Amino acid sequence: MASSLRHFAGLCCFPASAAAAAASGTTCLLRRYTPNFCAFAALRPARPASPAAAANPLASPADHEEHPAHQQAVPCRDGDPPALSSAPPPAPAPLRVGIVGFGNFGQFIAGGIQRQGHTVLAASRSDYSAYCADRGIRFFRSVDALCEEQPDVVLICSSILSTEGVVRAIPFHKLRPDTIVADVLSVKQFPRNLLLEILPPSFGIICTHPMFGPESGKHGWSKLPFVYDKVRVMEDGDQVAKCDQFLSIFEQEGCRMVEMSCTEHDRYAAGSQFITHTIGRVLSQLNLKSTPINTKGYESLMQLTQNTVSDSFDLYYGLFMYNVNATEQLDNLERAFERVRQMLYGRLHDLIRKQIVERVHMQTVSLEKLENDRSNSCATHLVSSA
Amino acid sequence: MASSLRHFAGLCCFPASAAAAAASGTTCLLRRYTPNFCAFAALRPARPASPAAAANPLASPADHEEHPAHQQAVPCRDGDPPALSSAPPPAPAPLRVGIVGFGNFGQFIAGGIQRQGHTVLAASRSDYSAYCADRGIRFFRSVDALCEEQPDVVLICSSILSTEGVVRAIPFHKLRPDTIVADVLSVKQFPRNLLLEILPPSFGIICTHPMFGPESGKHGWSKLPFVYDKVRVMEDGDQVAKCDQFLSIFEQEGCRMVEMSCTEHDRYAAGSQFITHTIGRVLSQLNLKSTPINTKGYESLMQLTQNTVSDSFDLYYGLFMYNVNATEQLDNLERAFERVRQMLYGRLHDLIRKQIVERVHMQTVSLEKLENDRSNSCATHLVSSA
Repeated sequence: MASSLRHFAGLCCFPASAAAAAASGTTCLLRRYTPNFCAFAALRPARPASPAAAANPLASPADHEEHPAHQQAVPCRDGDPPALSSAPPPAPAPLRVGIVGFGNFGQFIAGGIQRQGHTVLAASRSDYSAYCADRGIRFFRSVDALCEEQPDVVLICSSILSTEGVVRAIPFHKLRPDTIVADVLSVKQFPRNLLLEILPPSFGIICTHPMFGPESGKHGWSKLPFVYDKVRVMEDGDQVAKCDQFLSIFEQEGCRMVEMSCTEHDRYAAGSQFITHTIGRVLSQLNLKSTPINTKGYESLMQLTQNTVSDSFDLYYGLFMYNVNATEQLDNLERAFERVRQMLYGRLHDLIRKQIVERVHMQTVSLEKLENDRSNSCATHLVSSA
Repeated sequence: MASSLRHFAGLCCFPASAAAAAASGTTCLLRRYTPNFCAFAALRPARPASPAAAANPLASPADHEEHPAHQQAVPCRDGDPPALSSAPPPAPAPLRVGIVGFGNFGQFIAGGIQRQGHTVLAASRSDYSAYCADRGIRFFRSVDALCEEQPDVVLICSSILSTEGVVRAIPFHKLRPDTIVADVLSVKQFPRNLLLEILPPSFGIICTHPMFGPESGKHGWSKLPFVYDKVRVMEDGDQVAKCDQFLSIFEQEGCRMVEMSCTEHDRYAAGSQFITHTIGRVLSQLNLKSTPINTKGYESLMQLTQNTVSDSFDLYYGLFMYNVNATEQLDNLERAFERVRQMLYGRLHDLIRKQIVERVHMQTVSLEKLENDRSNSCATHLVSSA
């Protein structure tokens, strides 16, 4: 049945092909005469596979079949109501997402956006035109040029340290007044306050933190945490719908969606992610080497160190400087280290002092301590009663 | 064929049943009359399954079948040569291993020794008589009583801190002069020097470190590292054979056998195991909690912390106090932590000083730094040239 409908491709206007159809001048020939054909649409993929999606093994047909909402019959482009009055509500047109900052992470996120059938525009001062051409992404050498295209969502994928400069350089007047601006930084209070301060009041703001990256997400995004805060979404107009549509990209990719305030995020992240990066950074200073006698615990630390230093030091510095809770956590870690040192040296000092000051022989001290320590140790202590 | 031979059980003297046969007064009735029956021995298990081995799923029949050396025809107990002059060399009698210190780790190691068909004797001041009775282990309330049984190997399974007292309390004069003494401590130079100092010169010394325990080895010992150093093994007599037989327990259990000097072990272990335990101890002071936004790295640190504190603090203290390289590693870790703190605060100080002293506005500083930092960051920085 599906294959018998192939010759209608491009004739009936499905949402994902609407823009392409409009661009190529294709009109909806079947619209008035064979309206029922739209009801067959569910049997065909709603969105033509983008070059990137076709090349990407993550975008399997099974993925698409999980999202029947995208495959419903919809009104044609000129706004006519659907032919069947009982048909489900129309699926929204795909989003046009303008990524500002197209480094590793921007490129990585673009993959998911494309897999979900949306259009990606990208701007970078570096030249990614060849990379983008291969993947069906429109590339712009300036943010100004990208903004002239008036994307639905501007997604800031710059580093933490560059974000203020990047956001201040966006020509907001060129964008539509209901544009949504989103970010993907590993800190959240900073971009939230920055965007609230700088953006025109009618702009929507979604602060997000995809807690994965090109390495941890290379086999798919399933179950990986995606934190978001709908900081400002206007009830009137279609900002609510577009916001949901944007978030559904990550939901459909299988992410574990965690709605959380930016403040709460930064408190949790300082106690977990920042601590983890700090341990990795500290260990990287030790130049840990694999030994013939690695324990499993040591191997997990070597792996952690490798993962940490594969991120830039700027990211780590950003986690520290742009999270108000990081200093407290660094201090906690320093105190914890000092306490452990004290426990070791304090006990050593007790032992030596007993020998030097109290003139107790080493062996006697050991035996005496044995008795005291016995209950703390899981191994059985066997000391002759003699 | 195997079952048809069952009625000969206990008549022909196989090595594993020799001691039992001697104890029960059974003599070798078939010895002089039907010598060829010994050649059938390979068809029957050489060692009767111990109660523990029978109950333990790790001791599958397949395990035993992998070790045909244990199933060869052997001379009968009184030392007669084997009936067939072309038969392979006789398999050694099973070892009698006396474990001194029968806490968690001693019990854990006893399981492997029994699975390999050897006899376990155990001594502890705590009462493990019921535990031992269930598992076919002879239990002694004192090391003296155990030593009167003259085991082939005395295996010290005490904690690091109690080992000196335990070793000094062993009545060496009750043991045979070719006894082998082995230990399983997580530090190696200390027991090596202690045993060399205290043991009678004819005693064999094997220092070992099974780098796993009841938790990491609960599903079997396959591929887990077992470090050993044959510190002193006499060439004459059967110490060499008994040493090899003892080590073969761990080899047959599937351990990755690592022969290494005690000095080398302690150098590697301070840089890996002690560092790992220190990180776990430091993090345990922070009371890490699971958050809704755990990263994989953070989860690995939580796991490490949990594993570390499941060991006693005495073990950690032992790794520190009884390894000559530990202080250096603790100092290295402290310096590494200080360097990372310096990198963070130093950069922060630069930024603030620029504002306060040089009167440069925050945003300008950020943009200027952006330019400098650009090459260090993997994300593309998009700063307007304006």
